[in-house]
Amino acid sequence: MNQPHLITPEQLAGMDRFYRMNLINSLSGYKQPFLVGTIDGRNRTNLGLFNSLVHIGAQPARLGFFIRPLTVPRHTYHNIIERKKFTINLVPEAFIDPSHQASADYPWGVSEFEKTGLTPYFSASHIAPYVEQATIRIGLELEEEQKLACNGNILIVGKVVEIYVPENGIFPNGSIDIIGQKTAGVIGLDTYFTTEIKKILPYARPN
Amino acid sequence: MNQPHLITPEQLAGMDRFYRMNLINSLSGYKQPFLVGTIDGRNRTNLGLFNSLVHIGAQPARLGFFIRPLTVPRHTYHNIIERKKFTINLVPEAFIDPSHQASADYPWGVSEFEKTGLTPYFSASHIAPYVEQATIRIGLELEEEQKLACNGNILIVGKVVEIYVPENGIFPNGSIDIIGQKTAGVIGLDTYFTTEIKKILPYARPN
Repeated sequence: MNQPHLITPEQLAGMDRFYRMNLINSLSGYKQPFLVGTIDGRNRTNLGLFNSLVHIGAQPARLGFFIRPLTVPRHTYHNIIERKKFTINLVPEAFIDPSHQASADYPWGVSEFEKTGLTPYFSASHIAPYVEQATIRIGLELEEEQKLACNGNILIVGKVVEIYVPENGIFPNGSIDIIGQKTAGVIGLDTYFTTEIKKILPYARPN
Repeated sequence: MNQPHLITPEQLAGMDRFYRMNLINSLSGYKQPFLVGTIDGRNRTNLGLFNSLVHIGAQPARLGFFIRPLTVPRHTYHNIIERKKFTINLVPEAFIDPSHQASADYPWGVSEFEKTGLTPYFSASHIAPYVEQATIRIGLELEEEQKLACNGNILIVGKVVEIYVPENGIFPNGSIDIIGQKTAGVIGLDTYFTTEIKKILPYARPN
């Protein structure tokens, strides 16, 4: 039977810590893994793997993502605050392994670029490093920071200042061909997936 | 050639409005479409389609999502503020069409449940309606609200109070089998996809 079964608040609270972590992380379903490229005040590059990318607005173009609480140094966070610029690079299927490796806890000053073999790419117009292996890359400028009262998570909102995308990677209506560009997706913290289009639907109207 | 091509700030600003909307909405990549179930002070149910679900924390378990600015009445928002409870129901592949239809702009007091044919399901322990057709359903309690300074978007953070999931829908490590449960994904506002697992990776360590 495929009948949903109720997990009560008591059962949630009584779960093994790692079991609950896996359960709750998978509840947000399909997500986009992405690499955030930053640079510090001494021009040392940094790369971090994240998976909570959100659309904030189209005019002006804005994206947001969440950084965990500042209970330990978060290199990505400190670099964004210092230099105000960052990049978001969607993880390509062919580079899932080195991208996942960028989530490891390397010491301050060690560049994940060197450790993972991913290559920094610098645009003439943006100080933060892109990932050369990513075919969809976004250059952003810090616009707003919101710290959550409930647990100290930080929402970073950036204004999109430039985009790199292959010319054959955009549909005539402007949408990027995420699937055709062989972009990886992720569920939870570890389950990477690939996709096929099921259907494209028109704008919904009441009748 | 698959070489990324630069779109400059000037090109972004000069784009046709709908072309840019499609472009920017697709930049956040793979997302999870979900139906938010709410109830107003007169016990009238409401259902809305959203696609910006984010993991906020595992202990206590929290999820967040974004609602567009309150420039028009947002039934989902007002009901959450009034009743403090809501549900998140992941869209099943077999119900993509009625779920997409729930995004249409129905007048206040008209329940999307009636209009779409999706069925409300009430738990004994939660006042907000679930969607019976969804096999993965989450009951939440409003915990925090953050209004973005940049454009008035609202982040709603809820504490997970109960979960419905089929017994065969959870892996031994606690992760929900999102793919096996035939959950739909979405890119942009209209492109629904289905998936296959590419790989599952271990926790990344520096060496």
